[in-house]
Amino acid sequence: MAGENSDSSATADVTSDRPPVAVDAMGGDHAPEVVVEGARLAAERDHVPILLVGDPDRLGDVGDLQVLAASEVVAMDADPAVSVRRLKDSSIVRAAEAVRDGQASSVLSAGNTGAAMAASLLRLGRIKGVSRPAIAVPFPVLDSTPTTLLDCGANPDCQPEWLVQFARMGTAYARHRFSIDRPRVGVLTIGEEAGKGNAMVKAACALLEEPEWADQCNADYVGNVEGGDLMAGVADVIVCDGFTGNVTLKSLEGFYDIFSNSISQAVDRGGSKAGNNSAAVVAEELAPIFHHFNAKATGAAMLLGTRGVTLISHGSSSATTIANAIRTADEMARTDVLGRIREAVEILG
Amino acid sequence: MAGENSDSSATADVTSDRPPVAVDAMGGDHAPEVVVEGARLAAERDHVPILLVGDPDRLGDVGDLQVLAASEVVAMDADPAVSVRRLKDSSIVRAAEAVRDGQASSVLSAGNTGAAMAASLLRLGRIKGVSRPAIAVPFPVLDSTPTTLLDCGANPDCQPEWLVQFARMGTAYARHRFSIDRPRVGVLTIGEEAGKGNAMVKAACALLEEPEWADQCNADYVGNVEGGDLMAGVADVIVCDGFTGNVTLKSLEGFYDIFSNSISQAVDRGGSKAGNNSAAVVAEELAPIFHHFNAKATGAAMLLGTRGVTLISHGSSSATTIANAIRTADEMARTDVLGRIREAVEILG
Repeated sequence: MAGENSDSSATADVTSDRPPVAVDAMGGDHAPEVVVEGARLAAERDHVPILLVGDPDRLGDVGDLQVLAASEVVAMDADPAVSVRRLKDSSIVRAAEAVRDGQASSVLSAGNTGAAMAASLLRLGRIKGVSRPAIAVPFPVLDSTPTTLLDCGANPDCQPEWLVQFARMGTAYARHRFSIDRPRVGVLTIGEEAGKGNAMVKAACALLEEPEWADQCNADYVGNVEGGDLMAGVADVIVCDGFTGNVTLKSLEGFYDIFSNSISQAVDRGGSKAGNNSAAVVAEELAPIFHHFNAKATGAAMLLGTRGVTLISHGSSSATTIANAIRTADEMARTDVLGRIREAVEILG
Repeated sequence: MAGENSDSSATADVTSDRPPVAVDAMGGDHAPEVVVEGARLAAERDHVPILLVGDPDRLGDVGDLQVLAASEVVAMDADPAVSVRRLKDSSIVRAAEAVRDGQASSVLSAGNTGAAMAASLLRLGRIKGVSRPAIAVPFPVLDSTPTTLLDCGANPDCQPEWLVQFARMGTAYARHRFSIDRPRVGVLTIGEEAGKGNAMVKAACALLEEPEWADQCNADYVGNVEGGDLMAGVADVIVCDGFTGNVTLKSLEGFYDIFSNSISQAVDRGGSKAGNNSAAVVAEELAPIFHHFNAKATGAAMLLGTRGVTLISHGSSSATTIANAIRTADEMARTDVLGRIREAVEILG
């Protein structure tokens, strides 16, 4: 999107001005190839300074990107906490340490999500006042800013109080990332009326209904939202436990894949029958719709609550998706999203 | 689908042979008009005997359908348990009583889901051995039988043991309704590996992994499934708590509405550009795909675990959807799905 028209000499200065994004080159379904390709794209297109972290012998052609050697890799299906503790020279651990040590501004991984969380938590620590970090995922809304859902998987079991912290952090994040002055915050549950939900959600609602936190955060609490409201633009931030959030995210991603694939095939069939180039013309109209709703392509998740910007991409991310996530990581670090999150939760500390 | 080629004299005999489906004529966003229209369609198209339950003065032209008078209505947003207790002459309560008293074979409501559950539970009672009834919803799978997810909302908080009961009931239901000899049963969670999930799910997994129940039910336990597997055909029955199930169901329904609407508009735009009748030709190819994935149109939910066949349709159901759900209710009653569910759980009694 950006970058192509930039003045390269000015950009070179900007690049050298700031610490790089530490990119876990070994994490992802198609790592390191696709990750390195994405990192090179981010460097060339967006002039983001990059620190590739991984095994130099396996990275291939990295162009002029900086490399931090790490000999080990946390497998996609490995136990996160165990791996991070044992594999001290793994790419994700070294990447988090680079942020801790001031060598990098932020970290991006498309690898084992749990390992990225554990590395961020164990190496960078929690922001004061935060009980548990949470994964924030932006969901697309038509003709509007995305709705951020959190927690999307960091905490399968939640205490009601944590949802208030998620609301605070999510508000700061949505305002910072999507320029929403006064975010509307809802709680994901199973009925529109107050008092609907499971026991944890009901207790969380009672806390969220207290006006204090929303006043402090300059947010509006809009109460219950249902699954059908997720992409309807009724709230800017929606909080839930990490189990519900992850099941919901994966369900929507899975349905998107199956449904969009079926649609594409039907358009091809219909286009062949209609003749001329109609399939291609229709496909061209569909492409932005598909792109808009493809969460895997558009929305890198951010771990909120640790003392370092930590972005998490889908394991199946393309090079372009990786590059976009790197750009987001760089932007979040440059514009000090952590400072905003700290302010939002400091009352708790 | 069926009905049009039937021998009407034979059908008339069949019709008179069996008790009618009690249809809650006052329940639904467009009740009673659309419900009455659906009931008439089911009677004409599928020769299902019908007992319309509602206020005779408000039902309009019911043709030659039988009517059971009920003066009250449970509103869509009313408190279910309170309403069912207080509104003793409401259509849903009278419909459930008709089943209890042998006047009807089954009940169908597109009204307040909680009220339909409460009426079924309070008027018909639980099957022996069932702790809690659960809502079973079929999810579409391409080129295969649907996957049944339960619980989709009856029990926001679940005990691990209940998920084993859901698995037993779901197995009987999937075998009976979709002719799946040996259903594959999975548990909805947030990781593929054993031991992933929240505390309740982990405890449920430990119980589900015991081979006894699956042997007794002639089922195969396939372990963890994730949200993305819901419509991928990896399991025939998936169990979860009612909070997660309801959020997932509503999320997918909401996304379907938004996404399919955007696609239709894009196809129209593309078709206009391509000229000729290409939009219409492509739309014709898309129609069966849209229909297939439109859970609101295709899948009536069934409440499993009460002593009476209880079908629940979406409040926004069309007359055709209502008619299809009535046909399913009739079929489930005629073929004694309750007997199969009783067998599946009797070991618990």
